[in-house]
Amino acid sequence: VVSNRGPLSFSLDDEGNLTSSRGGGGLVSSLSPLVRGTGATWIAAAITDADRQAADEGLIEADGFRVRSLAVDPALFRMAYDVVSNSTLWFLNHGLFDLARRPRLGRRWWEAWEGYRKVNRRFAETVAEHAEEGATVLVQDYHLFLVGAWLAQQRPDLRAVHFTHTPFTGPEDLRVLPSSVAEELLVGMTGHVACGFHARRWAANFEECCREVLGFTPRSFVSPISPDRDEIVATAQSEDCGRELERLEVLLGGRQLIARVDRIELSKNLLRGFHAFDDLLATRPEWRDKVVFAAFLYPSREALPEYLGYRQEVESLARYVNDRWATPGWQPVVLDTSDNYCRSVAALTRYDVLLVNPVRDGLNLVAKEGALVNRRHGVVALSREAGVWDELGATALELNPFDVAGTSDVLAGALAMPPDEREAHASALRKLAEARAPSSWLDDQLRQADADADAVDGGGGVPVVG
Amino acid sequence: VVSNRGPLSFSLDDEGNLTSSRGGGGLVSSLSPLVRGTGATWIAAAITDADRQAADEGLIEADGFRVRSLAVDPALFRMAYDVVSNSTLWFLNHGLFDLARRPRLGRRWWEAWEGYRKVNRRFAETVAEHAEEGATVLVQDYHLFLVGAWLAQQRPDLRAVHFTHTPFTGPEDLRVLPSSVAEELLVGMTGHVACGFHARRWAANFEECCREVLGFTPRSFVSPISPDRDEIVATAQSEDCGRELERLEVLLGGRQLIARVDRIELSKNLLRGFHAFDDLLATRPEWRDKVVFAAFLYPSREALPEYLGYRQEVESLARYVNDRWATPGWQPVVLDTSDNYCRSVAALTRYDVLLVNPVRDGLNLVAKEGALVNRRHGVVALSREAGVWDELGATALELNPFDVAGTSDVLAGALAMPPDEREAHASALRKLAEARAPSSWLDDQLRQADADADAVDGGGGVPVVG
Repeated sequence: VVSNRGPLSFSLDDEGNLTSSRGGGGLVSSLSPLVRGTGATWIAAAITDADRQAADEGLIEADGFRVRSLAVDPALFRMAYDVVSNSTLWFLNHGLFDLARRPRLGRRWWEAWEGYRKVNRRFAETVAEHAEEGATVLVQDYHLFLVGAWLAQQRPDLRAVHFTHTPFTGPEDLRVLPSSVAEELLVGMTGHVACGFHARRWAANFEECCREVLGFTPRSFVSPISPDRDEIVATAQSEDCGRELERLEVLLGGRQLIARVDRIELSKNLLRGFHAFDDLLATRPEWRDKVVFAAFLYPSREALPEYLGYRQEVESLARYVNDRWATPGWQPVVLDTSDNYCRSVAALTRYDVLLVNPVRDGLNLVAKEGALVNRRHGVVALSREAGVWDELGATALELNPFDVAGTSDVLAGALAMPPDEREAHASALRKLAEARAPSSWLDDQLRQADADADAVDGGGGVPVVG
Repeated sequence: VVSNRGPLSFSLDDEGNLTSSRGGGGLVSSLSPLVRGTGATWIAAAITDADRQAADEGLIEADGFRVRSLAVDPALFRMAYDVVSNSTLWFLNHGLFDLARRPRLGRRWWEAWEGYRKVNRRFAETVAEHAEEGATVLVQDYHLFLVGAWLAQQRPDLRAVHFTHTPFTGPEDLRVLPSSVAEELLVGMTGHVACGFHARRWAANFEECCREVLGFTPRSFVSPISPDRDEIVATAQSEDCGRELERLEVLLGGRQLIARVDRIELSKNLLRGFHAFDDLLATRPEWRDKVVFAAFLYPSREALPEYLGYRQEVESLARYVNDRWATPGWQPVVLDTSDNYCRSVAALTRYDVLLVNPVRDGLNLVAKEGALVNRRHGVVALSREAGVWDELGATALELNPFDVAGTSDVLAGALAMPPDEREAHASALRKLAEARAPSSWLDDQLRQADADADAVDGGGGVPVVG
């Protein structure tokens, strides 16, 4: 397994000794339980000083797999990570550029692009150095698009599969990147045996980009990840979550709950969510004092000014809605930005309506997690722009995330849904969320790597004529 | 001819009598000379009070064609024009939305959308009422996407062709609109016999949108408009332009000139143009005091806050570049926002490099006009995102409009181009700009209308299977 962040995050204790704890991030928490006990090697960047010290000490055994941290020059890493991965590739693939102003590809950007190339090459070299003959290599996400092409040259015996956890842009928006950069990214990706995505749309976009820019159709596959049902249900039943739920009930005072659980992230569409709730209270007075909108939001990427500014907008809009509608006994919006996983899970067990309205989202695990642990026959209002729409769209209530009036109408409809309809909705949704085993996602990647071994004569991509 | 703005703009003199003058806007100035003397009827909205008074008085003869102004309720018109046409359809088709924040389709937007539908219906009714049996109707631009479908019901004898002067978005970005709205727009457009665009890319996007949303391929055609060579050359040779050129020469003091002529418009990419010039001066000191960047910019759509804000950013960035680099004898950036057509034409005769770097542009006439009147063997640096790239791309220097470092490099290369290469460039460019007669664009629309009459048995759109 190769990913930007590793499964362990290291720190130094008071005596200067290395200690390790579980790493953060959605990818890591999804992957770790699947890799546990497999004896795999996990290669990831050393980010902090402690990480780098651990990297110097080489391999670390953990949870039945081995971790190899890769020391990268910190300045180089920041450029690759902040400027290219998070400010360019993330924005591109989520359609978040304000094109009249951003991106502005100046000299510093081109330096960062060189940094991204170097970091990718360092990863590829580390894999090439340590992978056993014929090993399967699972390369994760947009930080590491270029690993496959370099590996294919240096270690043609390896079978590398890439998986992208974000959306993937279409050929029209790809034109934002300089031609040489777009081409190198796609060549890098198609250097892998196959490229996987969480939804059909992202795979189709990737294929179209390759056809237009490279002139051939790459091998792609679709494999949405699933949360571990047993684990999240156990969390929901824990004492900690029980206490959080009690606190939440006091806050709600018997009112209905519209909940959302998200990072503070431009793609999550937090502003229009509050606007829609504001519209609901304005246009349907019967819901005033009858419903609370609780948003559990985790601060994210605060090294980037776009995210700091966005957080301020979000907080000020939440205050605006409260200033406008609150009564002595009722606070319409509860905005919680503390890092409290149990509180979020408690909210998922308790919502009457779960709002998942991203502008664009690779998958969105929260929608599935909610469907699995909710105990109120809650309704899920889901953006058609989330990858998980592929799986839950048959049952979830459809949102166009840009349509604030439409979102308000859907929320009102969900709040007023009759109990039997609600029950049918929630149980259909739970079935859809349970349909795929958590291991299917890892199995699909392994199968893609094997499929190539079977088809060695046939070659990888299918050339397109014309 | 049916268009939002008419060929005449009316005002009231001191005694309250109606007087008329030529209307503004690129579409009107391109179309008017072509329609002159044809005896056609031109239907357009009455915008000002004087316009509405003229509308009340019915038909007006002018320049060998008739003008029928169409009174529309001013509030309704503003909603349709400002909110739907200019803040939604313009932004959508130019890819200008900052999607984390805009568009925000609230109740007011939906009202405006009803306004857009009503205004389109009013246009269709006026055409239906006045068009002769079997007449050809040329419907212009994104303000009037829906006219064709209503006309097809009310007056199936008419042959209506639509022409879009902006880019057209692809299916991925079209998803920003609510499904019902996207569908109604495409149904409205495909109600015309055929839909025309300035460039292949926009026609291809339109076809893809129709295939994805409506399930069939519409009839589309590509017909870039051309400026009238003789007219603009005559203007360039006029005394007024001569005086402006003299003033410009004094300002330049023998230095090279990078020029641009644009509306103050987010799609024109004014900010990155100044950033690229700033980078040029920073990275190539040999050009300091040797070149002036003159930007002739016309204020536009100042009723929309986005445009006011953008103008301030543009002006402050121009000041920043001057503050950074100016010397007692040299002002690096000259920013002129006065409405002086002759001064712009004089600049087009005098540029050494013409910068045309839009983020996205339906066509861009300035690039062709420059090639036609320039007297210095000037070089055109052209965004590959402009529709005119189809025609001039073989010779113009290619810009990726988002790549500030790349734009600076292209500008530097253009300034340093040897005289013989420069001459070959300019004369090849002139030939390309002269390749199409100004009448070809009108002829293509008329031919499309006729082609349908020939192919009545075959029907319009080609259904797609699957």
